[in-house]
Order: sequence, then C-alpha cells, then structure tokens
Amino acid sequence: MAKQTYQVTGMTCGHCVSAVKQEVGRLAGVTGVDIDLASGLVTVTSGSELTEDDVRAAVDEAGYEIVP
Amino acid sequence: MAKQTYQVTGMTCGHCVSAVKQEVGRLAGVTGVDIDLASGLVTVTSGSELTEDDVRAAVDEAGYEIVP
Repeated sequence: MAKQTYQVTGMTCGHCVSAVKQEVGRLAGVTGVDIDLASGLVTVTSGSELTEDDVRAAVDEAGYEIVP
Repeated sequence: MAKQTYQVTGMTCGHCVSAVKQEVGRLAGVTGVDIDLASGLVTVTSGSELTEDDVRAAVDEAGYEIVP
C-alpha cells in the first residue's frame, strides 16, 4: 500500500472535492482518496504502483491541476 | 412570462451554479434559470406565478441562500 500527497489548485467547494475524488478514485489500484479543501492537499492511497502522471491526468479530467 | 432576479450567496464555482440551476429548474412553471457566478445573481424565468418562497426553498435545497 502506498500513500502519496499532491497539491491541487482550483478546488473551491465540496462539489470540486467530489469531482476530484470521483476521477482519481476511478484509477486502477486506488483504494482511497482523501482531500482537504482548505489546503488543497489530495492524498491518494493505492494498492499497486500508481504514477504521478495517472493522478495528474485524472485531476486534469476533473477540471483542476496538480501544482508542478 | 415573468423574470425575477435574486442575489444568492455561497456559489464559488461552476458546480455550484449547476446545483442551483438544477434545483430551481425543477420548480413547476420555471422555463429558464440564468446565473452569473461572479455577481451571484440568479434570474428565473417562469411561465406561471412563482413565489419567492418556492425559489428560496429550491436554492436552500441546493445548499445556498438567497440574500434576504
């Protein structure tokens, strides 16, 4: 099990949090997505190896961005 | 046809706009809901008589509030 935290910009409300949770949660191997709206920190728990590119693409798909 | 504009607080993003649009759009007689996110102004077009209480309840249902 691996946990990785990313800084995401642009989330302003609970709907934004839900959108990111849904897209990242769809990635293969992801078992948990924890988001703190105030700080923009997104912590992804995954059972298999997950690349930052996968997470970045999912966050982008939801309409937000991981800080480089 | 009647048009009425309300000031709504708490909408921060496009998801918020969608939520308000959906709830207000469900009210009987409503034919259009126009929302300006920046100003928080919600303009409701309706074919029949619509009370402010109906709109207030729908906005509340979506999780936001009409300024008194």
